[in-house]
Amino acid sequence: MTDVLRRPAGPPPRATGQRRDDVLRKLAHERHLWLATTGPDGPHLIPLSYFWDGESLLMTTREASRTVRNLREQPRARAAIGTGTDVVLVDGEVHVERAGDLDPIVFRRLPLHPDRVPGTVALRLAADTIQAWRGVHEIPGRVVRERGRWLS
Amino acid sequence: MTDVLRRPAGPPPRATGQRRDDVLRKLAHERHLWLATTGPDGPHLIPLSYFWDGESLLMTTREASRTVRNLREQPRARAAIGTGTDVVLVDGEVHVERAGDLDPIVFRRLPLHPDRVPGTVALRLAADTIQAWRGVHEIPGRVVRERGRWLS
Repeated sequence: MTDVLRRPAGPPPRATGQRRDDVLRKLAHERHLWLATTGPDGPHLIPLSYFWDGESLLMTTREASRTVRNLREQPRARAAIGTGTDVVLVDGEVHVERAGDLDPIVFRRLPLHPDRVPGTVALRLAADTIQAWRGVHEIPGRVVRERGRWLS
Repeated sequence: MTDVLRRPAGPPPRATGQRRDDVLRKLAHERHLWLATTGPDGPHLIPLSYFWDGESLLMTTREASRTVRNLREQPRARAAIGTGTDVVLVDGEVHVERAGDLDPIVFRRLPLHPDRVPGTVALRLAADTIQAWRGVHEIPGRVVRERGRWLS
């Protein structure tokens, strides 16, 4: 990585365990993510509130949305959390579920409730792979979770 | 919009002209965007630095990247700038160009320079449609630019 060698002295890249801890803290404290899906009209990307349950990102949205139509054809999605200087990317398959079956606690974080907005569904993105970096010097070693398991 | 009617009193939705001014200010001052593309492996989403030239978002990345492979097959892309509570979404086609042909001024914002990193290409996302909202009360009227023209 030429960029790394030419980069002015800064903090060293975080070890995998530190990144995992930072990711877990971020997942617990942030409120919104960007969800990318794909379909016949090309790429789609929307902001959604989420609840992290320890294994999956839970969201609610309208069943009639382009995101849900896309996911029924191609369940793979990528979610981005954070900023361009503190990146967390989560890849996995999204299951579309009944919003009424969610644990009521998740609605502390999710604004769209099926009792108020008919046609609301739940999205469950099971975190298969997670990457995390804070600058180009952290691109190597950016994978902190793979096939649903944290790396150490 | 049931959500709007039940929303506690807050700021009224911004008029289109105000949103356009806010979007232009944001485009000038933010440094990073999330770029969603699509390809045979499903949706892709990465953070990139950008330079806004008044009509397009300019970025640099590696020619060998999945983003560039995707764009050569499906040039439509969506960029997200801001946060879940101050959303700007830009849709358009992305042209892959020679990074060496860019005006040198853009490299004040773009970290990847073709002289330092061989295989760097420029991406030019021509802003066809732009949407902007700061909460569900601003979902109606969220389109501020359409077919490459600002709405008034």
